Amino acid sequence: MSARSPRDGGYWLYGRHAVAAALANPERRWRQLTVLPAQETEARELVAGARAEHRADGEPVRVLDRGGFAQLLGEDAVHQGLALEVEPLDAPDLDDLLRAVHGAARAVIVVLDQVGDPQNVGAVLRAAAAFGARAVIVAAHGTPPTTGALAKAASGALDLVPLIEEVNIARALDRLKEAGFWCCGLDEHAATELAALDLGPLVALVLGAEGAGLRRLVRERCDHLARLPTSAAMPSLNVSTAAAVALYALKGQAS
Amino acid sequence: MSARSPRDGGYWLYGRHAVAAALANPERRWRQLTVLPAQETEARELVAGARAEHRADGEPVRVLDRGGFAQLLGEDAVHQGLALEVEPLDAPDLDDLLRAVHGAARAVIVVLDQVGDPQNVGAVLRAAAAFGARAVIVAAHGTPPTTGALAKAASGALDLVPLIEEVNIARALDRLKEAGFWCCGLDEHAATELAALDLGPLVALVLGAEGAGLRRLVRERCDHLARLPTSAAMPSLNVSTAAAVALYALKGQAS
Repeated sequence: MSARSPRDGGYWLYGRHAVAAALANPERRWRQLTVLPAQETEARELVAGARAEHRADGEPVRVLDRGGFAQLLGEDAVHQGLALEVEPLDAPDLDDLLRAVHGAARAVIVVLDQVGDPQNVGAVLRAAAAFGARAVIVAAHGTPPTTGALAKAASGALDLVPLIEEVNIARALDRLKEAGFWCCGLDEHAATELAALDLGPLVALVLGAEGAGLRRLVRERCDHLARLPTSAAMPSLNVSTAAAVALYALKGQAS
Repeated sequence: MSARSPRDGGYWLYGRHAVAAALANPERRWRQLTVLPAQETEARELVAGARAEHRADGEPVRVLDRGGFAQLLGEDAVHQGLALEVEPLDAPDLDDLLRAVHGAARAVIVVLDQVGDPQNVGAVLRAAAAFGARAVIVAAHGTPPTTGALAKAASGALDLVPLIEEVNIARALDRLKEAGFWCCGLDEHAATELAALDLGPLVALVLGAEGAGLRRLVRERCDHLARLPTSAAMPSLNVSTAAAVALYALKGQAS
């Protein structure tokens, strides 16, 4: 199942969207594009149009058969015949984000408190990309670096949404509030439904780890706590599912 | 990571909600409740109130330390000190479902076309339980039986939402339509947004595997095709995330 790690620090991105997003991202450095035999022409065109920086001496395109892909990425990977070996992106920080959203009419970001599983972080990034969130903030400690598992779950979103590591999540929330964000924590025990809140144009959606929820010092920073309309028998959701539903709900508010 | 399988055909359910749901389900047969030392009293009370049928000769409650739990369920399992060894539920069928929803003012069900990954099926069940869907229908071939991986991802939803296996999904859609359901397929290329449709009180939400989407013969059975408002850069979602967001969107329509 799991993808074989490429050389020192790199990882694989695969699938048409993920590879195209990486090659279109001028901040991205890549090593080699691996393709199925029938897609060599497509690959040459992709590489010719790349804005990402090619950082290897060898041939930029390598042709590999289906068996080779399965060995590289695992049997179940939906690779669509394209796999790109890349280097990690430079870590963006909160200052970059605050500059980017300054004056924005609308910005939603996601803040994760103690969500350690790389698959969950990747899946949250993907939900953020799908529903237009501007960044995902995670704790620098306890959160995994951008590994293959995270990249796989993100399905290309690593090149679309900044993943910002902050040493102190409570302090990050303070800075977001100073910058005009309303911080809304998701909590299955909250009295109010998320869709019933009017959160204004700048929203930081704060989610905790499944089971543990938000830590007290993070919860106390939130301007609001809200719940999703889940049933009493199944009140909690996986954190990435909760993020997706909440971002969809906030999207509805904006329109 | 993965849980050790118990004896012949059984699997582990764990976490407070999952265990409580199973013990409250009169259709469920169980073997043993495993608990952390501090929770033995809680466990005895749970077992005393169980409606599920105890089907083993030995002691119904076993005490195990944290290390034992980690060995049993994997390091990352959010077990909350409770793990129940159970037998699979008897498979419900479409006739049962149609009887159950007959005359209902509102019923939403989920139909999965060629979604084979047990984790995805489990996560869809969980979303169905959280947002009040009445059943999840999967193809009998190609879909895994209710394994530990499915049960783990379902997080107790196996005891809340019937998982119905049908040999022929297209034929199942025909029968649902005869029973008054509107079938709506999710498709990222559809022109209409799901929230913009008025689907009436009985809705079958049809989702395909990520990447492959719906097969032609399934798509043609759908009364509507609809999309979620995802971005052009990240149009597709994991199938369980898509199911959760779509069920949330339909919930909004009902109110």
